[in-house]
Amino acid sequence: MQAGILRGERRALARAITLVESGRADHRGDAIALLQGLKDADHGREALRIGLSGTPGVGKSTFIEAFGMMLTGRGLKVAVLAVDPSSARSGGSILGDKTRMERLARDPRAFIRPSPSQSHLGGVARRTREAIELCEAADFDVILIETVGVGQSETVVAELSDLFVLLLAPAGGDELQGVKRGIMEMADIILINKADGDLKATATRTCADYAGALRLLRKRPQDPEGFPKALTVSAIEEAGLAQAWDEMQALAEWRRETGHWAARRAHQARYWFEAEVREALLSTLKREPVKGAMARLAGAVEAGDLTAAAAAEELLTTYLQRPPQSGTGGT
Amino acid sequence: MQAGILRGERRALARAITLVESGRADHRGDAIALLQGLKDADHGREALRIGLSGTPGVGKSTFIEAFGMMLTGRGLKVAVLAVDPSSARSGGSILGDKTRMERLARDPRAFIRPSPSQSHLGGVARRTREAIELCEAADFDVILIETVGVGQSETVVAELSDLFVLLLAPAGGDELQGVKRGIMEMADIILINKADGDLKATATRTCADYAGALRLLRKRPQDPEGFPKALTVSAIEEAGLAQAWDEMQALAEWRRETGHWAARRAHQARYWFEAEVREALLSTLKREPVKGAMARLAGAVEAGDLTAAAAAEELLTTYLQRPPQSGTGGT
Repeated sequence: MQAGILRGERRALARAITLVESGRADHRGDAIALLQGLKDADHGREALRIGLSGTPGVGKSTFIEAFGMMLTGRGLKVAVLAVDPSSARSGGSILGDKTRMERLARDPRAFIRPSPSQSHLGGVARRTREAIELCEAADFDVILIETVGVGQSETVVAELSDLFVLLLAPAGGDELQGVKRGIMEMADIILINKADGDLKATATRTCADYAGALRLLRKRPQDPEGFPKALTVSAIEEAGLAQAWDEMQALAEWRRETGHWAARRAHQARYWFEAEVREALLSTLKREPVKGAMARLAGAVEAGDLTAAAAAEELLTTYLQRPPQSGTGGT
Repeated sequence: MQAGILRGERRALARAITLVESGRADHRGDAIALLQGLKDADHGREALRIGLSGTPGVGKSTFIEAFGMMLTGRGLKVAVLAVDPSSARSGGSILGDKTRMERLARDPRAFIRPSPSQSHLGGVARRTREAIELCEAADFDVILIETVGVGQSETVVAELSDLFVLLLAPAGGDELQGVKRGIMEMADIILINKADGDLKATATRTCADYAGALRLLRKRPQDPEGFPKALTVSAIEEAGLAQAWDEMQALAEWRRETGHWAARRAHQARYWFEAEVREALLSTLKREPVKGAMARLAGAVEAGDLTAAAAAEELLTTYLQRPPQSGTGGT
């Protein structure tokens, strides 16, 4: 599989992503070996990872399709992944239906992969992160990581990407408040979509509003002069896409030269390693015999026979190999 | 210490709280034994645990003092505890200065204890929960658990209390929106303070606004007819306090009779047991030799030598006694 991925074969890539998404322990061992093998192959390939968030109705699919087609038209290989913690619950993922991006899905230079169907955001994040590594090894130039604008998923996507792009709809000044400050502060580029037809004037005004709001934010070390930046685009008319791409490249270039790019990737690598360890440790609690012991002790705590402290101590010392807390007794 | 607590001796109680707040491992062992010993003593004492949240400026200290004095005046023993995750960072806890409640602090039937100085909300929650158990064993009738209205601390206090009271200031309709819906939904009783002098009319109107908003919330099984409820009080004029207490008692009585009281306490016991186990497990990562190995592996991940997955696998199998993920290798 490794050789196929390095040759950029879509089938090998798709199979590898299925492997990292698998919940089976033996698959997990294979996945870890595959990822490390690709790293050891030292392919030196580095895609531009673009995180993309936008509220429903902003025209995200239309934008990704138009933007992706423009990139493949320039000879670039484009992968589209998704972080969607809601997909398992709702039964349908945001990218489950490739018909949303019919033209791009048929493009031989594009690769679209729906969000793995897991309700747990941590699990979705890990699978997506590993899919990114696979796409990069398969020599993709641009990786778009899409998310629905809910809860913590933007934070996850920002920790997975080199650039974070916020896609917004034209709106009155009031709705500017609706974008949470924390999300605004993560954005590198804000794109106001639907700058066409009747909405063109509103889009221009909204863009100016956000440009003003961005200027009020504290200057971040990872930004050159003029960033973060707000621009208008029209996915339907395919307008402004080239300029948006120019800005992304300019920002990426500056960060590469100044070392911010490498620093961000190093920080992200540490972040995900630590998250992986924490998750793996906590998953111990969901396996037997710990799971059963925990249920039994929880029952005793509920019934009022044991304090939470004593029950936790018993679980930890008996089932999780921790030495008991010494103490002479509290009487 | 156990006998002293059961006799309701303040000095034994204060020493016991200091013990559960200690970070030393041998103290922890003593604390666990003391708490379990008190449970085994089967004292059958059950205080009314009242969680109290309110934004700064709402007059929380004045309210607690006036409300507490009314209760001690009726012969009840009142303890005041605090959950304040900010105290360590800001250097001063919300209850650090007993002069905020000078009269109550001198009352022999009252016991005031500041929030433990730990920045970690989980740690503060555990200490407060155990202090509650100690106060209950020392035969206190009412335990007020105060929190500042920030972040997750209301959720913690709601998980520690039998009733959750939200203290608000008189305000225009606009500011009604300022109370997060999630907090509103936790409240059993909303008290609009400062219903005195120039603000009396505004307080009455605000109370009606909140009463209306509460009626729009979905009916909860743990509420009798008419709850959650909004009332006006004046801590300064000591007005409305007796009525607020009557409502709290009526609600508590109804919940006791219908089993919701016991169910909530059982749920909370399980919740804190599980939280305790998770925290204890994760704390493994902060102790040697795991801590050092984790730092070394994080360095290798940052440098690009190891994938997060492979590094996590190494840490877990080498230092945390987990069997390796089987697998045949991914090539």
